Amino acid sequence: MAKSNLIRPHGSDNLKILLLEGNARQDELKRAEKLPKVEMTTRETGDLIMLGIGGFTPLEGFMGHDDWKGVCADMKMKSGLFWPIPVTLSHSEKINPGSEICLTSGETGEIMGTMKVSESYQIDKEFECKSVFKTADAQHPGVQMVMAQKEWNVAGSVKVLSESYFPKEFSMVYQRPAESRKIFEQKGWKTIAALQLRNPMHRSHEYLAKIAVEVSDGIYIHQLVGKLKPGDIPGDVRVKCINVLVENYFVKDRVVTGGYPLDMRYAGPREGLLHALFRQNFGCTHMIIGRDHAGVGDYYGPFDAQQIFFQLWDGALECKMLPIDWTFWCFKCGGMASMKTCPHGKDDRLMLSGTALRKALSEGGNVPEEFSRREVLEILREYYAGLKEDEKVEVKLHGHATGDAEKKIKK
Amino acid sequence: MAKSNLIRPHGSDNLKILLLEGNARQDELKRAEKLPKVEMTTRETGDLIMLGIGGFTPLEGFMGHDDWKGVCADMKMKSGLFWPIPVTLSHSEKINPGSEICLTSGETGEIMGTMKVSESYQIDKEFECKSVFKTADAQHPGVQMVMAQKEWNVAGSVKVLSESYFPKEFSMVYQRPAESRKIFEQKGWKTIAALQLRNPMHRSHEYLAKIAVEVSDGIYIHQLVGKLKPGDIPGDVRVKCINVLVENYFVKDRVVTGGYPLDMRYAGPREGLLHALFRQNFGCTHMIIGRDHAGVGDYYGPFDAQQIFFQLWDGALECKMLPIDWTFWCFKCGGMASMKTCPHGKDDRLMLSGTALRKALSEGGNVPEEFSRREVLEILREYYAGLKEDEKVEVKLHGHATGDAEKKIKK
Repeated sequence: MAKSNLIRPHGSDNLKILLLEGNARQDELKRAEKLPKVEMTTRETGDLIMLGIGGFTPLEGFMGHDDWKGVCADMKMKSGLFWPIPVTLSHSEKINPGSEICLTSGETGEIMGTMKVSESYQIDKEFECKSVFKTADAQHPGVQMVMAQKEWNVAGSVKVLSESYFPKEFSMVYQRPAESRKIFEQKGWKTIAALQLRNPMHRSHEYLAKIAVEVSDGIYIHQLVGKLKPGDIPGDVRVKCINVLVENYFVKDRVVTGGYPLDMRYAGPREGLLHALFRQNFGCTHMIIGRDHAGVGDYYGPFDAQQIFFQLWDGALECKMLPIDWTFWCFKCGGMASMKTCPHGKDDRLMLSGTALRKALSEGGNVPEEFSRREVLEILREYYAGLKEDEKVEVKLHGHATGDAEKKIKK
Repeated sequence: MAKSNLIRPHGSDNLKILLLEGNARQDELKRAEKLPKVEMTTRETGDLIMLGIGGFTPLEGFMGHDDWKGVCADMKMKSGLFWPIPVTLSHSEKINPGSEICLTSGETGEIMGTMKVSESYQIDKEFECKSVFKTADAQHPGVQMVMAQKEWNVAGSVKVLSESYFPKEFSMVYQRPAESRKIFEQKGWKTIAALQLRNPMHRSHEYLAKIAVEVSDGIYIHQLVGKLKPGDIPGDVRVKCINVLVENYFVKDRVVTGGYPLDMRYAGPREGLLHALFRQNFGCTHMIIGRDHAGVGDYYGPFDAQQIFFQLWDGALECKMLPIDWTFWCFKCGGMASMKTCPHGKDDRLMLSGTALRKALSEGGNVPEEFSRREVLEILREYYAGLKEDEKVEVKLHGHATGDAEKKIKK
């Protein structure tokens, strides 16, 4: 990459891109077909693609024992590099060091890459869960993923051969770090805030994004297009919601939208840090951390994901947090506000629980435009209308809404 | 000052406080009475008080020739210290170096301080005006002040003996840098944005302040209580407007209000820099610079005062700019917005010219609450009702409103 005004990637002057292209890819693919196959979960596949496109710069592959342990215990790899969440691959059998294996997607069967095995090791899963998720509760979806891992972790450097269905299925948003960086450079941006999204964008998210636009060169609305827990709104619907919002309510020149292929881990604070780390690789200087970032259920305090940023050592992470308080519409303020800017009471604020919003959307009830834009609500209504009855109950729309002021829904 | 989390004063580890108190003040006052008297303008008096309370740290008095010239030409004093606007005292006669003089207020006659004269010099006033105001136009109120200065500039270190009527007349807001710093420390704030005010606070200013609150520990609403140009809203009315707004629409724990004794110079970009410099002395890490900051008429481009911050050399100024675009209510957004966040058209935005607002307030017309809070409008209506007819024409309420969308006033 030529001399750039942008923030440098994590722990490196250049993106570490492990994805092969052209002839190199063809040759490696031929070789891969003859190697022993190891099937990956969707989480592992997403991690491999991020390794491929440079999203996990400067990692060179799946982590070995010492890195895994340091990351769990102290968020620090053997080299001293900051890393908040293990990036590991599991397999039912031990594999000898020096062996080469072919990595396939368990979801599609596609050959995704190759790995030169450096090490096989077993882990204390409870230690990993308690370190990363702050719980080993079997109800936690991230804990479930770790507990479902096979007996051995297999480590080694990788060559990546595919980005799976992401570039095609999410052609409107899927983006590599080199692409987002190029766009930011063309726009002449220097300070860029990232907004993490895994839900449709309501006015509270719009407000976060707009505060960021007011105080930086632009916003990178970056949504997860990997797997969520059952019942969350699927990626294609979210993409539509976000696009219609950006189209109608943002200044085009101040927004870039993108999608990335990871599964949610629901690790709350630790995942907030990972979000900032890989956004730095995408070229962002700031990561918006709102209420209950990357949380699930009641496992984390509402601002734990902000607190953890203050505990990092100097130089751990160049991408800075942009912490924003709980946001909502306040009728007395006559505008969007947060706990930091609105002095009024609960009853003056419009806050909808996921349950109330779901009910209104699937039964044709009124949802105030102060909560969500008309254009977004239309898309969600259409989606709900297409669901079978038993699916409706499952869908959880809005991760951090509360039951307060639900009466406002029919003001 | 004890070890502090706050930003250090400009060019110094401690506030340079030149105001004497107690016996030292009494003794110096007795001495002063016997010295030759030099009468100061209100601008010079305000500057002297700022020197007294540490607002102009690390200056020790009124500037000599070399400092004056360097400040005009390059915003740099002989010592290399960044300073954007001359702080000078003029007199009709040359005064011999080594002489001591008594400084009195031309407005009240009070003895304000003493000065040990180091130098008398004559200046090229056009050079000063073109450097500082970017114009020598006799219509410019800042140019008028310089052109009205007497023949000699008299320089030297000062002892300050009074803060004039400011502590009493503006007892609700007048504040020394040591006081604001103490409050910030007690609140545990580290990042503090300053909002400069010389107008009543309408929703556009409220929006600037609230963006700042969202992204920092708190806001310092800091209003000028010195002299403005004829027709501007007087200080006591402005203080009332701001207090009622803070009372009703801000979270108490996130706001500190204060007042400072300077006259407006209307130097636009250069004054924006001075505003940031002395806010650093008051303990602020950021200075909000909006549209046409410290401007008057059409002398400056709307964002010249933001551009000039980018031209400073490294280390010139520790207090950083928080630049915010032109702000307004947008009916399509359904909220406050700026040119950076609102994609809609002129007709969707509520922007009132000073003329339209004045007319509505003095004739009982409707002013939408999206423009200004009910409580603020009430105070302004009362003020206008008390004015004589010929005064009404003169009062200019809102320095940076435009004529667009005035029709919205009667929507």
